[in-house]
Amino acid sequence: MRVGFVGLGIMGRPMARNIMRAGHELTVHSRSPGPVEELAGEGAETADSPRAVAERCEAVITMVPDSPDVREVMLGEDGVLAGASEGALAIDMSTISPAVAREVAAAADGRGVGALDAPVSGGESGAIEGRLSIMVGGSDEHFARAEAMLSAMGTPTHVGEAGAGQVSKACNQVIIAGVIQAVSEALVLGSKAGVDPRKMVRALGGGLAGTRVMEAKESNFLEHDFEPGFRAELHHKDLGIALATAREHGVSLPVTALVDQLLATLEHTGRGKDDHSALLSLVEDAAGHRVGDGA
Amino acid sequence: MRVGFVGLGIMGRPMARNIMRAGHELTVHSRSPGPVEELAGEGAETADSPRAVAERCEAVITMVPDSPDVREVMLGEDGVLAGASEGALAIDMSTISPAVAREVAAAADGRGVGALDAPVSGGESGAIEGRLSIMVGGSDEHFARAEAMLSAMGTPTHVGEAGAGQVSKACNQVIIAGVIQAVSEALVLGSKAGVDPRKMVRALGGGLAGTRVMEAKESNFLEHDFEPGFRAELHHKDLGIALATAREHGVSLPVTALVDQLLATLEHTGRGKDDHSALLSLVEDAAGHRVGDGA
Repeated sequence: MRVGFVGLGIMGRPMARNIMRAGHELTVHSRSPGPVEELAGEGAETADSPRAVAERCEAVITMVPDSPDVREVMLGEDGVLAGASEGALAIDMSTISPAVAREVAAAADGRGVGALDAPVSGGESGAIEGRLSIMVGGSDEHFARAEAMLSAMGTPTHVGEAGAGQVSKACNQVIIAGVIQAVSEALVLGSKAGVDPRKMVRALGGGLAGTRVMEAKESNFLEHDFEPGFRAELHHKDLGIALATAREHGVSLPVTALVDQLLATLEHTGRGKDDHSALLSLVEDAAGHRVGDGA
Repeated sequence: MRVGFVGLGIMGRPMARNIMRAGHELTVHSRSPGPVEELAGEGAETADSPRAVAERCEAVITMVPDSPDVREVMLGEDGVLAGASEGALAIDMSTISPAVAREVAAAADGRGVGALDAPVSGGESGAIEGRLSIMVGGSDEHFARAEAMLSAMGTPTHVGEAGAGQVSKACNQVIIAGVIQAVSEALVLGSKAGVDPRKMVRALGGGLAGTRVMEAKESNFLEHDFEPGFRAELHHKDLGIALATAREHGVSLPVTALVDQLLATLEHTGRGKDDHSALLSLVEDAAGHRVGDGA
């Protein structure tokens, strides 16, 4: 398949590379020239704009930071839809508002282009290793046409109509944020009350309290290593999407609203670029205790 | 080892049975005669009081509902410490306040009896199958003497000094409560915003949002099957212990405090005997939407 890729950031670069490795003809575009040259050196074609990418591809993927960026690269004058042929696929894999995903899908539909919203979970390592979880919204027909190509980057699951991929991603971020905070509260309580946190993690991890967060981020929590990973400020952005979606659909999310405020606090106190596991540090600050320092 | 077991409830009965099956000589006592007769029929000795159990055993386990019950069966006139020989072990496996666990340990110490607090996680099925997670507080020496016998019921982990087992259990309950609520918020948001909840669970379960709660309770959530399992009112009791321990040690637990209020709401609205996964039903009530009913 002739595949275009717009947005070669930390996630986009390895995702594009895996598409090329799966045997597709790749054309790339990105704002910064470095990653474009890198991919070109590995065999990708390059193009001057999202529109120029779309003009020569059957499917174009966009992977950019936020809703306004997706509007620009999809709907702008030099955007994907301006260049895409009828019958082409426009697949946005950024994490954005479900409402904007539906807006893009409607615009694409008006031009005979098939849109999918397909945000991912799994981080940079998942992108490199081609084992992202890909949550896809859109029609059965468009999903069927994209599925094999998406599988080069991970496991695509078709979760519903246009926007449903973004809704699922928002729900994913709701769970992860709540789990990080719950684990943080448990670790600070246990440690300040005299329990060895390593032993506690071992004792709790095998039971109903077991979470992928505690497994994957154990050393972040216990070594206070908050190098991202996934930045707290991005998780704060994502909970903003979740809460706006909840407001639109009439859903009350009390714990999500609380953790959103805590992520905001991290950001306002200069820790927005730390890994989201730095929620631990707020619980520690409030207790005047660092996990592992003894009771 | 001559082992005594006091408290043959839903958890205690299968735990006592596994001790007997591991080859220990078992003496039992419980308030209701039914379970006592049942165990006697399988080869256990019986005794009239916790004191009488302790008089003939090297180690006595107590498994009762709450802190006052432990005070009574351990410290009362007819309690374990009144009958235990010097050098015996008194092991409380109930889920109670760490402060009461330390009180029992101090009283035991004064009589030359070795105390351990050893609450469990894993539920009735874990008790039956002998694969409970056992969080043990107490001295190295007492843990070493009890470890093999405790292994008949699951996996004991020595987490710290007297009370540390109960602190770990409280932390366990903090995590599980937070995770159930986070998963509930995600499911209601996703479902009301048009995502098929079964597909969402599949898409999210493999990534960082993966939790044992979502795996083990998927059918509770999706079928609205709130047969316990673990009753919401008991989880509410346990978060009361966690919050009291946090108050004692100077730790702020914002999400735990919020979920504690939600568990209280379940109880006050007649759902305290439902499984703790019924936290979902509060999120559903507040959204006017049942998960799986479509957008």
